[in-house]
Amino acid sequence: MKLAVIGVGLIGGSFARAVKANGTFERIVGFDNDSKSLQRALELGVIDEFALSAAQVVLEADLVMIATPVGSIGTILGEITPYISSTAIITDVGSTKGHVIHAAQRELGTAFARFVPGHPIAGSERFGVAYADANLFRDKVFVSVPTHQTRPEALTLVEALWVEVGAHVERMTSEEHDRIFAAVSHLPHLLAFALIHHIATQPDSERKFSMSGAGFRDFTRIAASSPRLWSDVCAANAEAISAELSRYRDLLAEMQTALDTGNGDYLERAFSSNLQMRR
Amino acid sequence: MKLAVIGVGLIGGSFARAVKANGTFERIVGFDNDSKSLQRALELGVIDEFALSAAQVVLEADLVMIATPVGSIGTILGEITPYISSTAIITDVGSTKGHVIHAAQRELGTAFARFVPGHPIAGSERFGVAYADANLFRDKVFVSVPTHQTRPEALTLVEALWVEVGAHVERMTSEEHDRIFAAVSHLPHLLAFALIHHIATQPDSERKFSMSGAGFRDFTRIAASSPRLWSDVCAANAEAISAELSRYRDLLAEMQTALDTGNGDYLERAFSSNLQMRR
Repeated sequence: MKLAVIGVGLIGGSFARAVKANGTFERIVGFDNDSKSLQRALELGVIDEFALSAAQVVLEADLVMIATPVGSIGTILGEITPYISSTAIITDVGSTKGHVIHAAQRELGTAFARFVPGHPIAGSERFGVAYADANLFRDKVFVSVPTHQTRPEALTLVEALWVEVGAHVERMTSEEHDRIFAAVSHLPHLLAFALIHHIATQPDSERKFSMSGAGFRDFTRIAASSPRLWSDVCAANAEAISAELSRYRDLLAEMQTALDTGNGDYLERAFSSNLQMRR
Repeated sequence: MKLAVIGVGLIGGSFARAVKANGTFERIVGFDNDSKSLQRALELGVIDEFALSAAQVVLEADLVMIATPVGSIGTILGEITPYISSTAIITDVGSTKGHVIHAAQRELGTAFARFVPGHPIAGSERFGVAYADANLFRDKVFVSVPTHQTRPEALTLVEALWVEVGAHVERMTSEEHDRIFAAVSHLPHLLAFALIHHIATQPDSERKFSMSGAGFRDFTRIAASSPRLWSDVCAANAEAISAELSRYRDLLAEMQTALDTGNGDYLERAFSSNLQMRR
């Protein structure tokens, strides 16, 4: 059994380490556009060998795992389609699903039935193969997003692999996935990036950053995520994120009115949602 | 030497524990509006005894530490003014300073010269005396905000106490303090509270919360702070927070335009502020 990993960053590298620990694949071959990452993945033993292109890495692969920023998945699928074996299963780990499925449908042809769209909820502000960890997915959720055309045996194999590396599988439609993660992941990242940008562009930003306490450090941790990865996510799920952002901006407008009119009761009630939620 | 602590929560309790460890005061007497907290503070050994009112606790105290939510500081100062000794030094730990200084000026009369406004940057999403920790202020910043009328000997004594418990003292004016913390503390808290409220008020909020990853958990940690404490902060520093919120909302409007028009380059650039800042 051969596993081809395209994109050997935190997620692709961790998946490779985790399945290697389980002995599921005899050969794990990697490819990454960044040759330094690829070299590093080999040195760290995350992959057994590397290929020099996406087309090359998928030759004779039984499973092709695409773990690149979502914006490049379409291009990669286009590159590999002529070279994947007629039985290979293809899967991805992108943070948005509608856009990826659309690209896969366009690029994969008949192989689309062997494509299993997925999303492990195991991100981190760390990125890069240096942080790859065989235990990253333990007790995390793997969201499985089959389409009407996904073959049951492909779905079963991919879900079983995620269970093997410690994840719990949750199935949902791509619409539900993209709506939920626009709210609990994409919008929060955008807000954190925006806050850092907001302060970084002020004249006394250095003094401000030097005075920051625990609350602000939580924001900087989120905003330490990869800018490219997250601008890709925003582009790929723009509509759902925009809808969330729109409603969030309405709420901020309400809160500003409360600030400006001294409506402390409104603010205290709104601030209590977190406590109420836990009851 | 007698220390009176009004408000035995995380900050008041930690200050009491820290100065007790140093043996600076022979007696530490506490008062809190919440009699359970007060009882708990005594049981935990955070205070040596308790009083039944703010007026009673300050009798014969050499230092009066006010560690209540900022909204109640004015009322408390009004209550204690007739009872504080003519040499007592009064200080506070409120997260906003202009509003507190204004109230102190109004309530304290001649004792205002012995009032040292302060703010230790050592908050946490935890609150309550149960978390009081003698080491909370170690290597943290204590912002000292003297007015033109603050007597040098009062200022020296309070700053020396904070140095003794491990903090670094930074002096600033109340205007600078309130402007800086509106940006790096008050606005981030408001945004985090708003995000939780935004999601909690959606029909499928439970499913959304169950799918949340690392980024969102950072927001819930911030939003686990005390709603009352933070609505008080918002009321006390409304003008500076409103100014920050206004500019942040403008930035979100720009980001939404970028989302809606597919301007990924703008988003990637804006998202890169955090990396640039660290260079």
